[in-house]
Amino acid sequence: MTRNPREREIIKILTGIFGKRSRFPLGFNDDVAAIPSGRDSWIVLKSDMLVGSTDVPPGMSLWQAARKAVVATVSDFAAKGVRPLGLMVSLGLPGSLGRRGIREIGLGLGRGAKEYGCPVIGGDTNQSSELIIDCLGAGEADPRKLVRRNGALPGDVVAVTGEFGNAAAGLRLLLSGKNLVLSKNQSLRDAVLLPKARLNEGLALASIGAVTSSIDSSDGLAWSLHELARASGVQISLETLPIAKEAVRFGDAYGVSPARLALYGGEEYELVVTIRREALARAKRRVPSLITIGRVLKGPPAVSAIVGGKSFSVAPRGWEHFRRSF
Amino acid sequence: MTRNPREREIIKILTGIFGKRSRFPLGFNDDVAAIPSGRDSWIVLKSDMLVGSTDVPPGMSLWQAARKAVVATVSDFAAKGVRPLGLMVSLGLPGSLGRRGIREIGLGLGRGAKEYGCPVIGGDTNQSSELIIDCLGAGEADPRKLVRRNGALPGDVVAVTGEFGNAAAGLRLLLSGKNLVLSKNQSLRDAVLLPKARLNEGLALASIGAVTSSIDSSDGLAWSLHELARASGVQISLETLPIAKEAVRFGDAYGVSPARLALYGGEEYELVVTIRREALARAKRRVPSLITIGRVLKGPPAVSAIVGGKSFSVAPRGWEHFRRSF
Repeated sequence: MTRNPREREIIKILTGIFGKRSRFPLGFNDDVAAIPSGRDSWIVLKSDMLVGSTDVPPGMSLWQAARKAVVATVSDFAAKGVRPLGLMVSLGLPGSLGRRGIREIGLGLGRGAKEYGCPVIGGDTNQSSELIIDCLGAGEADPRKLVRRNGALPGDVVAVTGEFGNAAAGLRLLLSGKNLVLSKNQSLRDAVLLPKARLNEGLALASIGAVTSSIDSSDGLAWSLHELARASGVQISLETLPIAKEAVRFGDAYGVSPARLALYGGEEYELVVTIRREALARAKRRVPSLITIGRVLKGPPAVSAIVGGKSFSVAPRGWEHFRRSF
Repeated sequence: MTRNPREREIIKILTGIFGKRSRFPLGFNDDVAAIPSGRDSWIVLKSDMLVGSTDVPPGMSLWQAARKAVVATVSDFAAKGVRPLGLMVSLGLPGSLGRRGIREIGLGLGRGAKEYGCPVIGGDTNQSSELIIDCLGAGEADPRKLVRRNGALPGDVVAVTGEFGNAAAGLRLLLSGKNLVLSKNQSLRDAVLLPKARLNEGLALASIGAVTSSIDSSDGLAWSLHELARASGVQISLETLPIAKEAVRFGDAYGVSPARLALYGGEEYELVVTIRREALARAKRRVPSLITIGRVLKGPPAVSAIVGGKSFSVAPRGWEHFRRSF
């Protein structure tokens, strides 16, 4: 679902093999893949595989895991400003899973599909040693309107669709077995068990043509910012960190840096975008949850944060995989 | 990859959930799924998941397994007469798999992609406890030209694109450890380790508009015939069984019924089609490998075979999963 260093190496090996002959427009370096279709139209595809042992923390139910697989796929469409039209779901199901568990997975997928208006239209089922839910979304886009990762320009504003840190805090509670604390804090619980893809926000931002680059934050805010900086060849300077107040409270209570939760948490599905300065007001009218967090500067790709008047470098670290993070 | 009775039950549970709101044209009962796109155009999608423990027999290398995942997906496009334009590949890779193994998987996927002219355009990688290769193909089709499962009419001819039984024989040799015998028999070896999707044949048959229904035989010849009969509401009467001579030799040598190998083998990717009688000659000119095996009759869905002047019922059994078949 999200990438660790090994996965990045694997992707490098594979794209080295597949990339040679690729005549496809988006290459391997964007959130979605595309096939030129009719005139002014691309078929847009994105797959995201959820693996039971690494993507489903203890305390997350089967329907929540299945719904989350849909959210992860839809989130990449949201970042591109493209509406997903249908989902294909390939399942690997342990032999021990009974009818009830299978039904729960189906209901979770159906719930996600309904939330985002993209029905499950087909799929494949198999027996496997652990739960696998591979969810592929398909849509269509006018290539001129699809928001890329590489269009950020110096002078643009950096913005996000919401605050960060709650998913990382909630995940830590789940992993530490402090489920009672979690159940009393709806924001942390929902962030980790019922994440939301910002589809309406992504479609609205794309429709006004003000967004110069965009990515979702499933690999963590820091990683997403580095991706936009790298793809666009710009520097990003953070002027504020959008930390949720519940994450700050959690950090204070358990001695974890709230900034770390917000920057390196991952499994959050906010959008991270760059917007032309003159379009910012219009964008905020369309997406009231939009928070300005910094600006795009000229210079070799890097991400820095200004804290207390001093500039610090933000490490290009990705999501700390939950099995290693505690 | 292929369906056993449990998988059929699972599909029933899931389609019961997803089907309620489905406004998509092909429903869940065809080889591919479709999304209406521009005028006279559908986006056509098919996913097929290969699972290491159940779909990769001992003796099959990683690149062969990866290539086979492509073949399985392309084969469904072949049955519909639709050209796949691109592949999305989601991988679950065991942590023990090194760079070399990953490269081998990439090369196998690349080889399959090249054979069928449908590049890998994106995907997802994850760590999982066993090898998972979920291969999704995407294409476009004019809905009037896409060949369904449900168009067979009394009077049509039933035909297949090749002989059956070699894959089942080869698989039995692999599972019994008789690799020396297998390596000496190229037809059996290639049938199980290097299966071919009949894409050119499927495209050619669809282009002449003579095929009234079509399915691939990955679940076994008997199952495929039953599917066409059920979907079209017709009877199918087999007049000859297209058993490969190598499968007959194998059956004789090891005391296995060659007819059983051909009917219930599975993991073969021939096309099983029904053709208007008057178009048969033209179809055979376009696809010389086409073999007539029977005819379509009026009556409640059933499949029978005429052997020695007597009519026998062909059981609606699917592929015998290899872990259970020996």
